[in-house]
Amino acid sequence: MTYCVGLLLNAGIVCLSDTRTNAGLDNISTYKKMFTFEAPGERVIAIMTAGSLSVTQTTLARLDEAAMDIEATPETSILLAPSMLQVAEIIGQTLARTSQEVAGRLGGSAASASASMVVAGQRVGGAMRMFLIYPEGNFIEATPDTPYVQIGEHKYGKPILDRVVTPDTSLSDAKKAVLLSMDSTVRSNLSVGMPLDLVVIEKDACRISESRRIGERDPVFREMSVAWSVALKDAFSGIKV
Amino acid sequence: MTYCVGLLLNAGIVCLSDTRTNAGLDNISTYKKMFTFEAPGERVIAIMTAGSLSVTQTTLARLDEAAMDIEATPETSILLAPSMLQVAEIIGQTLARTSQEVAGRLGGSAASASASMVVAGQRVGGAMRMFLIYPEGNFIEATPDTPYVQIGEHKYGKPILDRVVTPDTSLSDAKKAVLLSMDSTVRSNLSVGMPLDLVVIEKDACRISESRRIGERDPVFREMSVAWSVALKDAFSGIKV
Repeated sequence: MTYCVGLLLNAGIVCLSDTRTNAGLDNISTYKKMFTFEAPGERVIAIMTAGSLSVTQTTLARLDEAAMDIEATPETSILLAPSMLQVAEIIGQTLARTSQEVAGRLGGSAASASASMVVAGQRVGGAMRMFLIYPEGNFIEATPDTPYVQIGEHKYGKPILDRVVTPDTSLSDAKKAVLLSMDSTVRSNLSVGMPLDLVVIEKDACRISESRRIGERDPVFREMSVAWSVALKDAFSGIKV
Repeated sequence: MTYCVGLLLNAGIVCLSDTRTNAGLDNISTYKKMFTFEAPGERVIAIMTAGSLSVTQTTLARLDEAAMDIEATPETSILLAPSMLQVAEIIGQTLARTSQEVAGRLGGSAASASASMVVAGQRVGGAMRMFLIYPEGNFIEATPDTPYVQIGEHKYGKPILDRVVTPDTSLSDAKKAVLLSMDSTVRSNLSVGMPLDLVVIEKDACRISESRRIGERDPVFREMSVAWSVALKDAFSGIKV
């Protein structure tokens, strides 16, 4: 499985993904699920992926190839598309086409060719936007009412987001929120695992402001995880029934 | 959907169930999912149900009828069975038979005849035991390593159980833990809803020690829910990244 979460805040965008993939419980690997495209100062795009690895890898490779093509046009390249909406449309179309091709090859086999993506970013002069792209290529968008999107194993990590994240949340609190959301998920679902990839995009920077891989032994993450456990137990002790 | 959780502790048994049932999102009702059978001082059994209402109601009615039958035997009545294991077996057989019958009537329709149950209790002289009974009638048992079982929407409410519940947890803390576990679930899944049914069975009492319905406006539950929200936000603020 997978857990990826993105927050769209007034101060910027925060994205966090895990790296565990599995084909059955006996075949576990580490693959990056966080991809960034940048024309620094002009546009920045972060993409997170969940689902069939063959579909997500091929989709990303095609997006990359289309963007690097010397005959690329605003209709084909996410680095030339005139708006984040059109970036989402190019990605949705590429994902749906790839997924259909793979599904056709799989025929009646039990393997799934389903995949979904989170796409977030900003083009200079435009607003920051964040989309959840479904396997069929259609999408929904994060809004002030629900300023986050999740793909993969979303349940364990959702309560903390619902409690602490609003559009006014600071980037520093937002990083904490997604890391604690991930911590709850990693604890409960073996198919979500370390290391993690964190990307922060400050508003109007139109470039990656922070990109960090957080390993199993990362002292800051471990300390935060332990402190959260202790704080939760203390909070529990303090409640009267 | 449903959320039911049972804790098997050194001090006793704590069971909590919601009451929401739905046939589609446009057909929501309130049905009890907590049932108790008692021969006070000799045995006590609590049963919680999840899944197809027609299956769980018929299963409970059959268990009740078999227990009330003047020709009841230890093989057919959960009030006469010589051990909690055999109580679980009678319930498992009745559930599986009812489920198969309903599935047969449903034929190829999309409706499900699947249901699961939590069975907990004690017979005088025996140990307290707690079983999760699967739709096919087989079951697993709570152990000191994992002193709780859940049926229905288990994900949202699991992290708090994993963090605070051990076999040594007091009954008072256990009540708090299941209520907070339910609180997280009710917040996140609309198909789990108030009122709640709480049952506590103290060790070796062989009777229901406490049985309480907790309504939407229950002041203690509301206060706890608000206090937990505040405590979580405070805990969040206190964490440094």
